[in-house]
Amino acid sequence: MTDRFSFDLHVTDGAARTGVIHTPRGDIRTPAFMPVGTAATVKAMLPDSVAATGADVLLGNTYHLMLRPTAERIDRLGGLHGFMNWNKPILTDSGGFQVMSLAELRKLTEDGVTFRSHVDGSRHHLSPERSMEIQRLLGSDIVMAFDECPALPADRTRIEDSMRLSMRWAARSRAAFGDRPGYALFGIQQGGLERDLRAESAKALIDIGFEGYAVGGLAVGEGQEAMFGCLDYATDMLPVDKPRYLMGVGKPDDIVGAVKRGIDMMDCVLPSRSGRTGQAFTRYGVVNIKNARHQDDPRPLDEGCNCPACTGYSRAYLHHVFRAKEMISGMLLTWHNLHYFQVIMQEMRTAIAAGTFAEWEAGFHAGRAQGDIDPL
Amino acid sequence: MTDRFSFDLHVTDGAARTGVIHTPRGDIRTPAFMPVGTAATVKAMLPDSVAATGADVLLGNTYHLMLRPTAERIDRLGGLHGFMNWNKPILTDSGGFQVMSLAELRKLTEDGVTFRSHVDGSRHHLSPERSMEIQRLLGSDIVMAFDECPALPADRTRIEDSMRLSMRWAARSRAAFGDRPGYALFGIQQGGLERDLRAESAKALIDIGFEGYAVGGLAVGEGQEAMFGCLDYATDMLPVDKPRYLMGVGKPDDIVGAVKRGIDMMDCVLPSRSGRTGQAFTRYGVVNIKNARHQDDPRPLDEGCNCPACTGYSRAYLHHVFRAKEMISGMLLTWHNLHYFQVIMQEMRTAIAAGTFAEWEAGFHAGRAQGDIDPL
Repeated sequence: MTDRFSFDLHVTDGAARTGVIHTPRGDIRTPAFMPVGTAATVKAMLPDSVAATGADVLLGNTYHLMLRPTAERIDRLGGLHGFMNWNKPILTDSGGFQVMSLAELRKLTEDGVTFRSHVDGSRHHLSPERSMEIQRLLGSDIVMAFDECPALPADRTRIEDSMRLSMRWAARSRAAFGDRPGYALFGIQQGGLERDLRAESAKALIDIGFEGYAVGGLAVGEGQEAMFGCLDYATDMLPVDKPRYLMGVGKPDDIVGAVKRGIDMMDCVLPSRSGRTGQAFTRYGVVNIKNARHQDDPRPLDEGCNCPACTGYSRAYLHHVFRAKEMISGMLLTWHNLHYFQVIMQEMRTAIAAGTFAEWEAGFHAGRAQGDIDPL
Repeated sequence: MTDRFSFDLHVTDGAARTGVIHTPRGDIRTPAFMPVGTAATVKAMLPDSVAATGADVLLGNTYHLMLRPTAERIDRLGGLHGFMNWNKPILTDSGGFQVMSLAELRKLTEDGVTFRSHVDGSRHHLSPERSMEIQRLLGSDIVMAFDECPALPADRTRIEDSMRLSMRWAARSRAAFGDRPGYALFGIQQGGLERDLRAESAKALIDIGFEGYAVGGLAVGEGQEAMFGCLDYATDMLPVDKPRYLMGVGKPDDIVGAVKRGIDMMDCVLPSRSGRTGQAFTRYGVVNIKNARHQDDPRPLDEGCNCPACTGYSRAYLHHVFRAKEMISGMLLTWHNLHYFQVIMQEMRTAIAAGTFAEWEAGFHAGRAQGDIDPL
């Protein structure tokens, strides 16, 4: 264990990288996928089960937690880790993105955003300073700078103005964060799909100086091809010796493409949300467990998977409990999906370390091209 | 392990008894509480977690399973144990009680009951012969005779006619069950609160001969005092050397009162259903976790409980996740409740074996009289 936050980059294979982020709460093996624990729980999972899938770090949502149960309450109760019974690292977002997608009656000024809660209509204000305070009260190990993120497509002026506002907010976030050994503050690059704006944003962030750098403003409607096109240059603009985090990504092939382009960290609700709606990810693609083809199928989702859903249950059972609206359906499929995402990450870490990422990637795509096993 | 079904009565303390039911799938320590796995799942729990609470046996519902996914499908898939990933004993009810409470357009004849499914309106028939067939297809270790059970209060003529029909059905159930070493068929005593009818029913069942005897027709609206009054004589009418099962009971104090009166087995949805609606049972009574008094309370539900909900989470957290409608709320509270029910059973088994049941019972009631801990 360490009392400092640091990043050791071990091996690169093409643009893909593997290493370890050290934090006082434990190591994060990169590339890392972070399950999302929105309201102080990864939906349908107990924390021990999340850890058993191989997750080294969780993401918590500042917006949700500030509204309910509130950051001050979590602080009084000893912080988010103890509150939700998760003693490994936690990264929290800044609240900015979710205010824009979830809150009502938003008003944006140079200072920050005023809005009404989607839970109870109460009035709130978020600014760089308030976001830093909330994330400190939560006890987050990796704090995200407060930013603004326009949906794509958007015109260049809107993206440019927004990015420059986010860079001014990044400087205020850095100042408000203060000196907190063992904790990290990450800056967030913006600039949409405009290469020069991405460069300007990266330079502004590097001038301020952060413990890590996120690529923000992607996975917001631009599509995979455009996202990869942007990552092809955006990642290179960020420091080599610091973790690079692609926010809100993604589907398995998004994740693999991002790692290929030099991303070290990602998060997404997809594995847990899909698990609750009857979608399972396997190396052969997506299984929709609600389909009648599974109702008599004694085989597991994936013969080669050693998660509890695959070692203990048939597709017929998973189909039955989904149709019967039983909670165990979401519990098992979420576990499977989170397990599968972590398996991908572990396989990529191993392949990068061995210098065989290209071969691994070819195998990954070949499995998906093969498609799900045939019905019996 | 044994290849036979048998019951060893070890010790009695007053009317209370402790012993072991041996089955090829494992032993059932008595008195035993059976969690209910209605649709091939104990709601909000994984089977390993149910076993971890100390449950030796589950109850499955013939009515639900015959409608979805169907007994024939479960049979083709290898039986209920493998289907739901539970390798310990399973007891199934006969379907009769739930047809009367859940199905639509019921028509009762000497042969059995015709009804429409509450799931999809499809038409079905249940009779002693069909119930035996379904329970065999499910692979149930302990099969219940098919009976009819009137809600109370009901007039004597209705109870008498119904009991005699159930006794004719009990004989048909016995004949249809056949010779199945390692499996058990239990008869069900009826007769409402009429002592002479209970005696007539018990004699009819004993004349037929069963591996165990249930007290049916209670916990259907008569109240605890009337139920205990009936148990005071009904239990004595059943063979001493066979397990006695009180169906559908109950709250913790119902369970303790039933054990005191010589009952060996019980089942109830209460711990799991209450867990999903925010009610937790502790030795100090019921905690309604939704109450605002818990929102800042860092203490567990019960300091003395070693279940995952109590060792990992504060009341404040449990309150938060209940209010946020997170699945972990039902998962943790169900686990706690099932754990608490099994703790009571284990404590009663130990006290009966030690000849100290009366002292244990006094402590149980003293804890409940004390009430929940004061708010901070």
